[in-house]
Amino acid sequence: MIRLYDNPISGNCYKVRLLLTQLEISFEKVHVDVFQRQDRIEKYGKKNPVGKIPILELEDGRCIGESNAILYFLGEGTRYLSKDPFERIRTLQWMFFEQNNLEANIAIARYWATLLKKEEEYREPLKVRRAGGAAALAVLERHLADHPFLVENQYSIADICLYAYTHVAGDAGLDLGPYGNIGKWLARIPEQPRYIPMMENPEV
Amino acid sequence: MIRLYDNPISGNCYKVRLLLTQLEISFEKVHVDVFQRQDRIEKYGKKNPVGKIPILELEDGRCIGESNAILYFLGEGTRYLSKDPFERIRTLQWMFFEQNNLEANIAIARYWATLLKKEEEYREPLKVRRAGGAAALAVLERHLADHPFLVENQYSIADICLYAYTHVAGDAGLDLGPYGNIGKWLARIPEQPRYIPMMENPEV
Repeated sequence: MIRLYDNPISGNCYKVRLLLTQLEISFEKVHVDVFQRQDRIEKYGKKNPVGKIPILELEDGRCIGESNAILYFLGEGTRYLSKDPFERIRTLQWMFFEQNNLEANIAIARYWATLLKKEEEYREPLKVRRAGGAAALAVLERHLADHPFLVENQYSIADICLYAYTHVAGDAGLDLGPYGNIGKWLARIPEQPRYIPMMENPEV
Repeated sequence: MIRLYDNPISGNCYKVRLLLTQLEISFEKVHVDVFQRQDRIEKYGKKNPVGKIPILELEDGRCIGESNAILYFLGEGTRYLSKDPFERIRTLQWMFFEQNNLEANIAIARYWATLLKKEEEYREPLKVRRAGGAAALAVLERHLADHPFLVENQYSIADICLYAYTHVAGDAGLDLGPYGNIGKWLARIPEQPRYIPMMENPEV
């Protein structure tokens, strides 16, 4: 059986849980602590040189790291990834934007402020991450003004990817209130077949 | 003719210039200021919703943003991107790592410290970015201990992607001296056919 190295509070892990569930692929979860990061390379470096989760371990033992690479792998040949060469590049474009402009700001601000509860210690870096996160949300807001979903007007791995940290931007100290188009888009995701929420198992 | 919205000091733009040159594709450069960022959405938002460069504009007017999405687009069908489905995912894995762990730390620290010369203003955020950049370099260093190149033991868009900001890590205040495997790998890149250095045109 496919194995997912996972944690319920990680948005990056959630992306993979959501897609696996929507694809009706059975998988086994291996719980990884998100606060104990010192020994990650030692423990998981052979499966993912970066030591990060999620890691998808296939039945033959091969492993894939990076949530968006896993989405692209699992999405191949399904309704969740376009067959059109240019739309596939567009999908990657949104997913690289997510890792660089959205995740790198919102996930880290959320980790410091809400999970570690170190708002004061990270005061200056938090300012920069929140400004970057707000700029990324503004990009999404503009695009969603005339697109119901990110690519080809239909739900895809690009939406799964961007949804994960956008819908918990409040945990990073960002107010989603002013982003009306994002709000409407966020409401479309739970309407998709076999949707599961992020914190299905809230004990960390 | 293909058009590249470009700046000579941007590592992300350099990736695309390098691959276009290695593929012997003629292109026209449009110079974009990297210090004037306020009006980017207004000027370039129709070509790339994020307003960032590089942007590749095709002959039919379609545009692609995100340096790594452009590499994947241009690499398709060439010796620089594997035809093997799993190695293509491996390539994406390294490129997502680059945008999240390497570029988001090294490019930003380089921008603040060396290009804006605001080391003091960004003192606290710089500490975090440098620690993140050093951790990313440690990942590369371990992987390169037994791999001459990142994917399939041959030069590919993954190497172009990771080379861009690794080889200028000094500008971010990171010392590459202790990373012997990275040093050997960096020396292999300029040996590739039709290599061009980053600062071919140093006036910003």
